[in-house]
Amino acid sequence: MSPESRRAGLRASMQAAELDAVLVTDLLNVRYLTGFTGSNAALLVGVTDDDSAFCTDGRYDTQSARQVPDLRRLIDRPCDVALVTEAAAAGVGVVGFESHRVTVDGLAALREAAPAVEFRRAPGLVEKLRVVKDDAEVDALRRACAAADAALAELIESGGLRPGRTELEVARELEERMRDHGAAGPSFETIVAAGANSAVPHHRPTRAVLEAGDFVKMDFGALVDGYHSDMTRTVVLGAPADWQREVYDLVAVAQAAGRAALAPGADVRDVDAAARDVIDGAGHGEHFVHGLGHGVGLQIHEAPALSRLGAGKLTAGMAVTVEPGVYFAGRGGVRIEDTLVVRDTGPELLTMTTKDLVVVQT
Amino acid sequence: MSPESRRAGLRASMQAAELDAVLVTDLLNVRYLTGFTGSNAALLVGVTDDDSAFCTDGRYDTQSARQVPDLRRLIDRPCDVALVTEAAAAGVGVVGFESHRVTVDGLAALREAAPAVEFRRAPGLVEKLRVVKDDAEVDALRRACAAADAALAELIESGGLRPGRTELEVARELEERMRDHGAAGPSFETIVAAGANSAVPHHRPTRAVLEAGDFVKMDFGALVDGYHSDMTRTVVLGAPADWQREVYDLVAVAQAAGRAALAPGADVRDVDAAARDVIDGAGHGEHFVHGLGHGVGLQIHEAPALSRLGAGKLTAGMAVTVEPGVYFAGRGGVRIEDTLVVRDTGPELLTMTTKDLVVVQT
Repeated sequence: MSPESRRAGLRASMQAAELDAVLVTDLLNVRYLTGFTGSNAALLVGVTDDDSAFCTDGRYDTQSARQVPDLRRLIDRPCDVALVTEAAAAGVGVVGFESHRVTVDGLAALREAAPAVEFRRAPGLVEKLRVVKDDAEVDALRRACAAADAALAELIESGGLRPGRTELEVARELEERMRDHGAAGPSFETIVAAGANSAVPHHRPTRAVLEAGDFVKMDFGALVDGYHSDMTRTVVLGAPADWQREVYDLVAVAQAAGRAALAPGADVRDVDAAARDVIDGAGHGEHFVHGLGHGVGLQIHEAPALSRLGAGKLTAGMAVTVEPGVYFAGRGGVRIEDTLVVRDTGPELLTMTTKDLVVVQT
Repeated sequence: MSPESRRAGLRASMQAAELDAVLVTDLLNVRYLTGFTGSNAALLVGVTDDDSAFCTDGRYDTQSARQVPDLRRLIDRPCDVALVTEAAAAGVGVVGFESHRVTVDGLAALREAAPAVEFRRAPGLVEKLRVVKDDAEVDALRRACAAADAALAELIESGGLRPGRTELEVARELEERMRDHGAAGPSFETIVAAGANSAVPHHRPTRAVLEAGDFVKMDFGALVDGYHSDMTRTVVLGAPADWQREVYDLVAVAQAAGRAALAPGADVRDVDAAARDVIDGAGHGEHFVHGLGHGVGLQIHEAPALSRLGAGKLTAGMAVTVEPGVYFAGRGGVRIEDTLVVRDTGPELLTMTTKDLVVVQT
């Protein structure tokens, strides 16, 4: 879908809210609606593209001419003030603004620059469009997932998971290998958690040393063309103990149930429950301490939330994670996570690494 | 200085502004005033510490008990709403809030939770305290600068700067070596710019290959204990051409003049002018396209701005960069940057790498 048709989508919400224009200041939302990737910009979406304008500063004159050829461009600072000043001069009456992003001081500056304009809170209009991914977005997500898959495969093949290495060394190698496969960087701080640390859901990697018999939980992702991937795998160093096989199998079954529940029209709480019921049924509900998953796209965490506290139904084209976990404090834990796209024909898996229990020979 | 005495500093501004309390929601400001390093928290500073409270969520119960032993703690979500609800129940009348950070929707939620409270805009109160660094902060800055110094020294000694390597490879090696020296990560995306790319002030490293005769400009920093360092060095691969020596010497003289102008009481515009006049005098004013420097601390860019558009005077204890540059489009450029602390006895240099022109043998 072109930026132009995305702007047309925004106009539908704009007209429903009886706004003459929407001021978009969130940089990811500006990127979504224009293709601009710089670090300073704003966009005023009017009734047509002819009534719209894009603004950035002098550093991005050349870049924005290339990336935003289809909108009138202002080169000015601050961009939001420049755009509303111009809109006020053109007689625009009611301007919606991203009240979940604009600060109180920021709104005061807009009002001072354009006293004749009525500024109306309009939070989340662009985010609502962003939950459903188009083909180009899914392609970027697919490449981000492929970079993470390739990094993990190489890490394991090259013997990078072995007793004596530290969590930090493994995390850094994963991040380097993702960069080698085209990632601009990691999507978030890579989690590598060995032994008892694997029981901490969001453990930060330390100088703790991997030991034979450990669970090693790795939660990581790649940033490619602005889109994030998110995957968790948990492996065992050497022969797994019976309790390790049992908890792994339980999480794998729960994760499969969660994936199977991904369908257009499904309530997000029911998707969460599909996986959670499996873990509850095995008597480990109290050890699954977080939601099942979240949307992923230009942000690593975005709508929809797949959790007991979530609300709403899935739609074809949503990209989400499914990531149940069972954690035994002081002992170890397992999380298995994929990134998938909701489809009419069943969920499309983007993270391709096996979910069989990987036993790393030591 | 202890978090407790920093809070006492904030109370002076609070009383001057006739506020009964200040709600601090910027995470770096919360860290500054409490020592808490987690990713979700807020702080209500009342007339005494007994009238104050800290709030975080359940993930940080243990960590916050250790890091914030001296304040009453709430474990709740959202933290800002929890704190003002409690303050309203205690009869607090006027609460200042960080209007440069709090969103319009965020303020609406506060007002809904505590309708009896008068919320008053109070932007930048903590940032004003943060511009003057205490001994513990300078120590962290010093260690951050040392990690960057060590990384560059090792890069050069080990032959890491040589024709045939890419800008990206050099950038990644610098970042890895900073981590080896205790950095949590780079302070910002490392700039490595070779040949004509060195003329782009904020060039992002590419797969462009270093060649004999190139200027290689490296602008990078390390994050240590929450504090940033910032340093730029420009070297030549092989024997420098006459024009390269000339522009290097010019920037070095300008940079020395800028450093020499750092003194308590100096107007920030005069500090900028001290360096700029040297470059103007050589006829290259139009090739120095940015300000001279900026404050550095918990943020990589913070007050004061040393530029023609800046305002205010220096104070002992401010940590700033001095970074003039001269750039010839299509040909190459030089920037030399240090991080320093303003002292009564003359500026204290934190970045120790030589500023003599380093000629890397090829």
